[in-house]
Parts: sequence; structure tokens; C-alpha cells
Amino acid sequence: MTDAMLIQEVATRDGFQIEPRYVETADKIRLIDALSAAGFSRIEVSSFVSPKAVPALRDAAEVFAGIARRPGTVYVALVPNPKGAERALAARVDEVNLVCSVSETHNRANMGMSPDASMEGFAQIMETVKGADVSTNATVATAFGCPFEGDQPADKVMAQVERYLALGITGVTLADTTGMANPVQVERLVTRALAVVPAERLTLHFHNTRGLGLANVLSAYHAGARRFDAALGGLGGCPFAPGATGNICTEDLVSMAHEMGIETGLDLDSLIGLSRDLPRLVGHDVPGQVAKAGRPCDLHPVPKAA
Amino acid sequence: MTDAMLIQEVATRDGFQIEPRYVETADKIRLIDALSAAGFSRIEVSSFVSPKAVPALRDAAEVFAGIARRPGTVYVALVPNPKGAERALAARVDEVNLVCSVSETHNRANMGMSPDASMEGFAQIMETVKGADVSTNATVATAFGCPFEGDQPADKVMAQVERYLALGITGVTLADTTGMANPVQVERLVTRALAVVPAERLTLHFHNTRGLGLANVLSAYHAGARRFDAALGGLGGCPFAPGATGNICTEDLVSMAHEMGIETGLDLDSLIGLSRDLPRLVGHDVPGQVAKAGRPCDLHPVPKAA
Repeated sequence: MTDAMLIQEVATRDGFQIEPRYVETADKIRLIDALSAAGFSRIEVSSFVSPKAVPALRDAAEVFAGIARRPGTVYVALVPNPKGAERALAARVDEVNLVCSVSETHNRANMGMSPDASMEGFAQIMETVKGADVSTNATVATAFGCPFEGDQPADKVMAQVERYLALGITGVTLADTTGMANPVQVERLVTRALAVVPAERLTLHFHNTRGLGLANVLSAYHAGARRFDAALGGLGGCPFAPGATGNICTEDLVSMAHEMGIETGLDLDSLIGLSRDLPRLVGHDVPGQVAKAGRPCDLHPVPKAA
Repeated sequence: MTDAMLIQEVATRDGFQIEPRYVETADKIRLIDALSAAGFSRIEVSSFVSPKAVPALRDAAEVFAGIARRPGTVYVALVPNPKGAERALAARVDEVNLVCSVSETHNRANMGMSPDASMEGFAQIMETVKGADVSTNATVATAFGCPFEGDQPADKVMAQVERYLALGITGVTLADTTGMANPVQVERLVTRALAVVPAERLTLHFHNTRGLGLANVLSAYHAGARRFDAALGGLGGCPFAPGATGNICTEDLVSMAHEMGIETGLDLDSLIGLSRDLPRLVGHDVPGQVAKAGRPCDLHPVPKAA
């Protein structure tokens, strides 16, 4: 069990998008440049959504214009519709990430349209990006359960994955949008997904809403998944669970991987330093544990009484 | 993978022992009675340590005298030395739990003596409890790493387990005292331990200090472990990691187990209710996630805009 793990950093998109305090564009750029330097080969930088819907990310174009592009790193933008795709292309993103919930209720609440309407938009977006030097990924949101509808049948999830592939979309993300997944379910769905999407194009996106984020990563890894989204400091969250934690925490995941002998290509010390600076940017404590406790190998002085 | 999981609740011992605010004896008794009613077959109630060393648990005898003993539930006390064992017997505990760190430095800091001196004490305690209607368990503290010394060789851990068994001690706990374990290490050590201790007498005690608590449970369960310590609300902590979380959280573990189809015999709704009352007792927020987010099956109303 020593295959490397590819971690895509999503804090500046999935984390910052729900922060009530606006993170200044210059701070976003500084953080993304530091994440590039820490070794990420994939960073989800921002989202080309309506500035009214998500004011926290209204500076997506300026951020893409301001960051230093590290050779070999793929800078991704979330794109909700064809208009967003045009803005993303103008900002020279390397990859667009499209999102549609498998739950119709969630997609209407989150995207303001039916899943079928989302899929029609995806077809248009694929026309828009044709010939451009940009790769494509699409996310199945609520793939492990919907906070309104509950369980989502695996057959329905897989049908959506097949629709993505039929549109020519290269990468697929299975997202546990509100942290409802469990390790048994994860193992089953990852096994099914890997039958149609190769491991190097399948991403698992877990939230730690109910404390199972890293247990789900472990289960997915055992089932053959190798790509994971994570957010520095465990930023992110769920509007329906006040006080609940957000995305799985990047530095906690990296610490786990390294302790298990799994390479990530990431500089854990740098990540811990960046995570410790997050409260200054967002104005509150963040859920990540390793930034508080230190790495397992960071030893403590022996108490004097001993 | 449907073997039941046996969870021993340790919040009133491993949790309360480090709380700066004293939890009143009557509140402790009420909580333990509610935990009994929620279905626990094992509860680590308190500790017969020096009241000067751990004033938070100075009422151990009163608590044991006040609780309602549910038939079939084993009420355990931690006991550091022969004097504590005598007090535990007088309080009619069902089981004594002895603790010695595999790290000499940690045992001196934690127990004020060398591991050899601890083991001599254990031999005396086994004499003391001979003939009494009390079972015995012993914990290998820092079994997955010491915050002062670092890695602890598995051979050394196993040698300590063998010494416990040679003394006639029935149960063995492997404790990740400061949350340094990782899933690969857990799988290896559990596999070795199960070669000499049957699953029904081996307990794993994990802390969530670096966010890996439930991932380590998952790994231990896959390796054949079936008994786990956990603390309501994730109480507990590590004096060397300010802000770090404590024991793995009982209700988060129970939620994970039930979602995976693993029985625990516990009433999750009751546990969530008890956890939500903890901040009133201890005066601060607690780390558990399910008590904040609700169970995965607790659905939310659809937002009006949808």
C-alpha cells in the first residue's frame, strides 16, 4: 500500500466561498502562490459563479490574473454555467470543474435548476471549451446522500457519471457534499466508479461533517482511489449544520498519508505554517488538528518533575 | 464485516480528569446512570488516584456508591497503585484497569515511577484482588508513540503485553495516549496483539489529537479488533497540545458503526442528547461532530427558494 496520493487543494474555493469575512484578493493570491510552492499539482483556485450569489469569490478573474503559475500545477476553476465557462476561459484557467447534484432537490437549491438543465448547460460548456487548452472535470454532488432527500441510489450516481463521460468530460469527482458518507458505502461506490473511470481521473471529495472524513479517505484508498480534494485547515462547511466542520483538512490528510508511508509530494511543514495563518485571514479558529497538535514526530520536552 | 463492536465509555474518567471545572458528584452520577440506560456494557467510571494529583476525580468512591448498577454492565475504575486497588475494592468496582506506559520517560512523568516499579505494583494489586469478585485489565500507554521519546518499538509493546498476561491480568488495552498512531501501524500492532490476546479481551484506546481517531478504529476493526474506548463528546485531551481534541468521540463512533451496519447495542439518539448537555457540565464546547450536525439520516427542510 504505497501508491502515491494526489491531493487537490480546494480551500480558496470551497473554503472561502462560505466565509462571511471577505478575504482580500492580494491575500488569496499570496496563499495560492504559497500552496503552489508547497508542492500541489492541482489547486481549485476559485469559482466563476455569479458575484451576487457568491460575493466571497467575486474576484476570481483577478486572482487568476495575479497568481504565479507553477509549471506542472493545474489551476482549476469551478464553473456553474456556460457564461461562467466563458469567464474562466478568458482568465486562462487550466481546468473547469462542473457541478451537478444527483439529488434533484439539492441541485435546485444549490444551482437553481434541475439536473437535466445542468446537463444541458454542461453540453454547451463542452462546445465552448472545444479547441481551447483546458481540461474538464465534473462533480457528482450529494453522491453519498442528500441533506433534503436522504440516500441517493448508487445506480443513479453511476448513471450521472456515465452522462459525464458521454459528454467527453475527462475527470469525475464523487462529492460527499454534506458529510453523510460512511466507509462501507465509500468502498462500494469507489469500486463501481473505478470500473468506468480510471484512478488517475477519479477524485473523492469528502467533508468531515460527522467526523468520518479521514476514515472515508482510508476506505476509498483501500478500494483503489488515489485522488482526493482537501482544504487547508479543514475550511468549508455546511450551511445546514452550524458548528460542524467542513472539508477534510489538507494537513491532517497529508500527515496521515506520510505516517502511512504514502507519498503526496507535499511539504507538510509549509502546510502547517499556512494553516496556522488562516485564522488571521478568516477571523476564526479552523478545525484542522495537526496545525494545533504538531506532527506526530514533533516531540515535547520532558516535564521537570520526571 | 458485521461483527458487533463493543464500546467502553470513558468520558467520566479520561474526560473529566483534565477538566478545570469540577463536575459535581450528583451530575457525574446522573450522567453515568444515563449512559447505563443508553446501553453501555462497560463504563470506566472514575479513577482511584491521589485526590491531590487528580482533584477532578476525588469523589470516585461517592460516585461508585451513588450509581445504579445496571445488570450486565461492568463498572470499571482506573487504579494506579495497590492503595488505589484497595479503595476500588471497597467501592465495589467490577473491574480495575491498571496503566503503565511502554515509554519509561512517559511513565515517570505520568505515574511518577519506572515501568518496572509499576509492574511490581501490578503484582501486588493482583494479590490484593485475588479472591475478590473483580476482573482485571491493564493498559499499555503510549503504545503507538510517546510525546517525549517518539516511536516505541512494537516488540517492547508486545513484551509488556506478555508481562500483563503472565501476571494473570485478563484484559489488555493498547492506548494511543497522545494521538500519534496511524492506520498502518494500528493494523500491524493489532494483528500482533490478537495472536496472544483474544479479540473479546483486547481494547483499543485512540485519541483524535491529529484527526485520525476514527480512521484508526476502522483499521483496527479490519484487523480484527472489536473493543474500543470512546468518550462522549470527544472529551479528554492532551496537556501537550493546547486546542487539540481528546478521545475519539463516542457518538461519532457509534454513528459510523451503525451507518456501516455494525451493531453496538447503543441508543445513538440518547448519546447525542447527553453529548449536547456536556457544555453545561464542563463549561466549554466539545469536539464531537454528530451532536452538532445530527445523524446522517436527520434530513433538513428544503430551502424556500428551491
